[in-house]
Amino acid sequence: MDHQGRKSENRRRLLDEGVRLLLHQGYHATGLQEILGRAGVPKGSFYHYFPSKEAFGAAVIAHYIEPFIVQLESWLERPDLDPLGALESYFRSLIAELQANDFQGGCLLGNLMAEIGDTSDICRQALRRALHRYRDKIATALRRAQEQGLVGRGRPPEELADFIVDYWQGALLRMKIERSITPLERFMDQVFHHTLQ
Amino acid sequence: MDHQGRKSENRRRLLDEGVRLLLHQGYHATGLQEILGRAGVPKGSFYHYFPSKEAFGAAVIAHYIEPFIVQLESWLERPDLDPLGALESYFRSLIAELQANDFQGGCLLGNLMAEIGDTSDICRQALRRALHRYRDKIATALRRAQEQGLVGRGRPPEELADFIVDYWQGALLRMKIERSITPLERFMDQVFHHTLQ
Repeated sequence: MDHQGRKSENRRRLLDEGVRLLLHQGYHATGLQEILGRAGVPKGSFYHYFPSKEAFGAAVIAHYIEPFIVQLESWLERPDLDPLGALESYFRSLIAELQANDFQGGCLLGNLMAEIGDTSDICRQALRRALHRYRDKIATALRRAQEQGLVGRGRPPEELADFIVDYWQGALLRMKIERSITPLERFMDQVFHHTLQ
Repeated sequence: MDHQGRKSENRRRLLDEGVRLLLHQGYHATGLQEILGRAGVPKGSFYHYFPSKEAFGAAVIAHYIEPFIVQLESWLERPDLDPLGALESYFRSLIAELQANDFQGGCLLGNLMAEIGDTSDICRQALRRALHRYRDKIATALRRAQEQGLVGRGRPPEELADFIVDYWQGALLRMKIERSITPLERFMDQVFHHTLQ
């Protein structure tokens, strides 16, 4: 592998480990040397890849949201599901994964909004961008669901999508301290049986 | 002041400073020496007051929720407001305070659920107790509102109260990264115009 190839490979491994460590330990409890060690990248070389821990945090946030967007899109493209059914199946798949992981971690976006959302401006901007991408994807699904008469047109799809992403974050926090699926089941009931009608 | 009096006075000052520092910096970013220094308590004497940083965190959580319970109770006891109006006024007062504080901090319970809710069992239990006390108080108000015909009886008051406390936490996270009142206004609209009918 040439120098550029190794550099981008190391960068990707740092981001993968960053997602894992920041999700489970948080931002301040995770040291740069620990990330390098886990990623198998030479100690002391961190600033070769990222200008600062904050810039790394922002890159981890963008890296983290990517598979969620891809997963949501693939549910929405399934020909056997309408947009509302796809959204419901997507959240059911997230819940199954959280249960399989014994309710550990939750969502990196929620955890970092809470820990550094008002202290690191670089990470705040990255969190905002990631959350808006996600919200827009959900809003598109809801707009289609409204066009197909599956959801009432009384409220704009963006407003409903904002409600869904914000309540989901709160339900995930509650899941962590209850160590239970109940807050997530309540989310499903509130969203799919009471709000989207 | 005798020894016991000074000890309990120092303990209270440590808890007050703990609330401020943990709310704004988080758990891991706040050192014991910083807390002692701000509280004006001799450096190195931390373990005279608390057996561990985790035990301190748990005590800070219980100390933090107290004024919220008192404030909520005082709104609910106002003779000029029905239970639903009292609940709405209570949340409006919180929003005014958050806006006055420039959207900094949010809620200590939400921040710590996110940062250490799944890594410190002592703090997890304290968060759970604090959140349940708060939820129960809101459920009592909603039960009264249902008895007075202000809220439909279709859903148990505990379920509605759980929804309110969880969504509020999510809305507060969003507020921090948007630096805006909008997520909290959306919470008010969802709860008081769409859900509690």
